[in-house]
Amino acid sequence: MKPILLLENRLIDTRVEQPSASLHDRASQFGDGVYEVIRLYQGTFHLLEPHLARLYRSMEELEIRPAFTKAELIHWLYELVTQNECKEDAIVYLQISRGAQIRNHVYADNLTPIVYAYVAEKERPVTLMQNGIHACIEQDIRWLRCDIKSLNLLPNVLARTNAERKNCQEALLVRGNTVTEGSQSNFFLVKQGTLYTHPANHLILNGIVRQYVCSLASGLGIPVREEMFSIKDVLLAEEAFFTGTTFEILPMTHLDGAAINGGVVGSVTTALQKAFQDSIAVSTMQ
Amino acid sequence: MKPILLLENRLIDTRVEQPSASLHDRASQFGDGVYEVIRLYQGTFHLLEPHLARLYRSMEELEIRPAFTKAELIHWLYELVTQNECKEDAIVYLQISRGAQIRNHVYADNLTPIVYAYVAEKERPVTLMQNGIHACIEQDIRWLRCDIKSLNLLPNVLARTNAERKNCQEALLVRGNTVTEGSQSNFFLVKQGTLYTHPANHLILNGIVRQYVCSLASGLGIPVREEMFSIKDVLLAEEAFFTGTTFEILPMTHLDGAAINGGVVGSVTTALQKAFQDSIAVSTMQ
Repeated sequence: MKPILLLENRLIDTRVEQPSASLHDRASQFGDGVYEVIRLYQGTFHLLEPHLARLYRSMEELEIRPAFTKAELIHWLYELVTQNECKEDAIVYLQISRGAQIRNHVYADNLTPIVYAYVAEKERPVTLMQNGIHACIEQDIRWLRCDIKSLNLLPNVLARTNAERKNCQEALLVRGNTVTEGSQSNFFLVKQGTLYTHPANHLILNGIVRQYVCSLASGLGIPVREEMFSIKDVLLAEEAFFTGTTFEILPMTHLDGAAINGGVVGSVTTALQKAFQDSIAVSTMQ
Repeated sequence: MKPILLLENRLIDTRVEQPSASLHDRASQFGDGVYEVIRLYQGTFHLLEPHLARLYRSMEELEIRPAFTKAELIHWLYELVTQNECKEDAIVYLQISRGAQIRNHVYADNLTPIVYAYVAEKERPVTLMQNGIHACIEQDIRWLRCDIKSLNLLPNVLARTNAERKNCQEALLVRGNTVTEGSQSNFFLVKQGTLYTHPANHLILNGIVRQYVCSLASGLGIPVREEMFSIKDVLLAEEAFFTGTTFEILPMTHLDGAAINGGVVGSVTTALQKAFQDSIAVSTMQ
């Protein structure tokens, strides 16, 4: 983690000052806040605008009313990256809680939301992206507003930790007969050359990379259908992959030990990965 | 709020020392922790043992492994109350997070859970208990492990705040056709002299007062059935009430504006309230 943090409306150098949170922060007592993880390639923000658009949507859905403008927030984020002299591949973690209040389920109207952000180096997991990962099936026991990127992440934590114990790199969540998404990713499959992914309703988080991959697919002439599908569809798929901010497009070669497409990363996946990588090259051009 | 807090393994006097939480506390980033609200009548703990039993169950379900013994925790809680010279009706809020860790969905095995507790004066809401409250129906959109008393409380916060705006004192949660519980309470109805409440499965939190009321009912010869029921059953009920640590047995006289039992608090409810109050008198006897 880089030493300089954004906390409330100022940058704090942790080598000089010890930052701390209020015990009455509603993030801690209720998970009452939202967050984003934003990619930096060679110190340059990638897809910053859609991340902030989603952040503002999440806040609006929860009636969290920031005491700063979007321009101020962007200014702080750029300062955070610049003052940390970040020039490598990294992420910014940005959290906004509703604010501090003596504990009460009913939130006050006049709370000042608490912003907190840091930068951490994060390499692209190139080997996993090339070779693909093993995933396992976990029940999707989350609440029914997964479209809000909130701090209520306990079910995701449990699913992802279960996956780790099974030597898997991601959990594929299933609600009833329907595959929804990964524990910290969206999910796509390829069937007869067409991409399928769960519709962006209240049962999934509409990932920024998910949306970006859909647009890349359009550019490549690959049809995309936002439709529900089952585990059986996944097992019979030609290709399957997860999408997410830190790992972009991550092929899933095995599910609960069963090979997808003989365990080989498919051509649609690699074409999308290449298109994604090309777009990074453009965005980080000096 | 009383000035002395329990934080980690020591008492802190906030008049002398400013307490603060780690920014990496998993309570804040994931809601990865559990809590209890425990009643004090005239400075004496009420139902402390079952609260702690539930706390330990919640921790076990989440694999949160405290670095202290139960005896140590009880010692701290008594010290907290004693040093604050609490002699009135109050509550202890006790929160245990999995610990601090650089953000990662996968939790490390060796984390030290963070304990945090405070005492706050809290009178019994006698007028509401006598006259009953108005409630409104809200959709139960919570996750499917409501039996764990976790810090993922955003749906409860939203439901309870919606109720407040409708000038109601509680939200009655409904999943599909089934009434589950309140946003921060359990729910009972009376039909032909029998108490009905939702079974204690993964869809509700098995309240300590819920269990206590069931045992009081047995003592009074009132049959109790843990069965699912619908909104229609509620509207046709002879009596209905919420149970919770701070308000004990709180009659619901109106639901979405419709009167239950003509808007009058019923005799089964008042008999249970009296039995509850008698038990307080016994537990606070010097």
